[in-house]
Amino acid sequence: MTTPIKIKPEAIEARSFAIIKEEFAERTGLRPEDLPASHFAIIQRVIHATGDFDFARSMTFHPQAVTAAITALRAGMDIVTDVNMVAAGINQRLLAPWGGKVICRIAEPDIAELAASRQATRAETAIKEALKTRPGIVAIGNAPTALLRLLDLIADLPADDRPRLIVGVPVGFVNAEESKQILTHKDYPFITSLGRKGGSSIAAAIINALLKLARAAE
Amino acid sequence: MTTPIKIKPEAIEARSFAIIKEEFAERTGLRPEDLPASHFAIIQRVIHATGDFDFARSMTFHPQAVTAAITALRAGMDIVTDVNMVAAGINQRLLAPWGGKVICRIAEPDIAELAASRQATRAETAIKEALKTRPGIVAIGNAPTALLRLLDLIADLPADDRPRLIVGVPVGFVNAEESKQILTHKDYPFITSLGRKGGSSIAAAIINALLKLARAAE
Repeated sequence: MTTPIKIKPEAIEARSFAIIKEEFAERTGLRPEDLPASHFAIIQRVIHATGDFDFARSMTFHPQAVTAAITALRAGMDIVTDVNMVAAGINQRLLAPWGGKVICRIAEPDIAELAASRQATRAETAIKEALKTRPGIVAIGNAPTALLRLLDLIADLPADDRPRLIVGVPVGFVNAEESKQILTHKDYPFITSLGRKGGSSIAAAIINALLKLARAAE
Repeated sequence: MTTPIKIKPEAIEARSFAIIKEEFAERTGLRPEDLPASHFAIIQRVIHATGDFDFARSMTFHPQAVTAAITALRAGMDIVTDVNMVAAGINQRLLAPWGGKVICRIAEPDIAELAASRQATRAETAIKEALKTRPGIVAIGNAPTALLRLLDLIADLPADDRPRLIVGVPVGFVNAEESKQILTHKDYPFITSLGRKGGSSIAAAIINALLKLARAAE
């Protein structure tokens, strides 16, 4: 049986990231140095959160995505998430100094009522309401319906009121692939994982990588 | 471009589960009917949460795992998690009627202080403290160190004070595989995903599947 290696807790993350980099080319057919450094940093954190190298090939970035995110975060803009799991996974200690907050309204009683009255999901209703406060980033980690609704809602907004970045990584078997494909055909800055794979852990990892990049850019 | 299918929000989950069942044999080489029904239900929910059929082969169950979990949940025992993302993903509405709570202490200030004084991670410290309240299930979705520490701590407890089930699905590149292999060699009821893959979404999906099974058993 394999024995755990002895390592100090604070050294585990750095060692994990080093292993991902070492194995990256062999497992993905891509070389880290052929990717923009910021994209590699985000992909690396997603692989760290999932143990799954498939994200190296499925993750897709709008050319303005990272710049737009860094500008929004450093301007103190908020991050809206579709579900509480994504919110719980975001490193709020990194976000707070710029003044931004993480907002997820899905579990609020008034959202459940609104959703029922509109025959909509709670996820999409929570997104609709949260958009009114003009967040900088919207992260969808769970529900394809929330991503589709977000894209409809954004189309109706003046450009200045739109979120600066959409992190759209819903997971699943009904409309997840389709919703992400639609996202890549819009002209808003986005980060996504094509195909069925996605989820709260992926959304949180992307946001946390962006927070680290925004911090490093100071 | 693919068009999203028209489907009512409340029908999405059922349709997703049906697709997973339809494709299961082709994608995994296993037939649903060759697995215990409860194991298939759990694996199906993990695939639903990740979009990843690999879990069909990596998920491993102690023979007493499901029975032990159902008994603990229906007795009103608590669920302890290593990180807040797992806690946020658990369907507390299903758990509450039996009297159990979801407990995660990692973000509490006294845990950070204790961890620093012990040169330990916050995750393992939070688990150690939470064990004192005799939870029914401990779910580790993030940190291998927390799982390793849990196994050490349990070895020192009288049998009656031990959790009835360990859901051990830490993710990653440093000690995740090793910690899960060790778990399978103990004689405590466990559910795990062998290899590197795991994470908060997987831990929450397993617990939610167990809650549904416990409800169905009534």
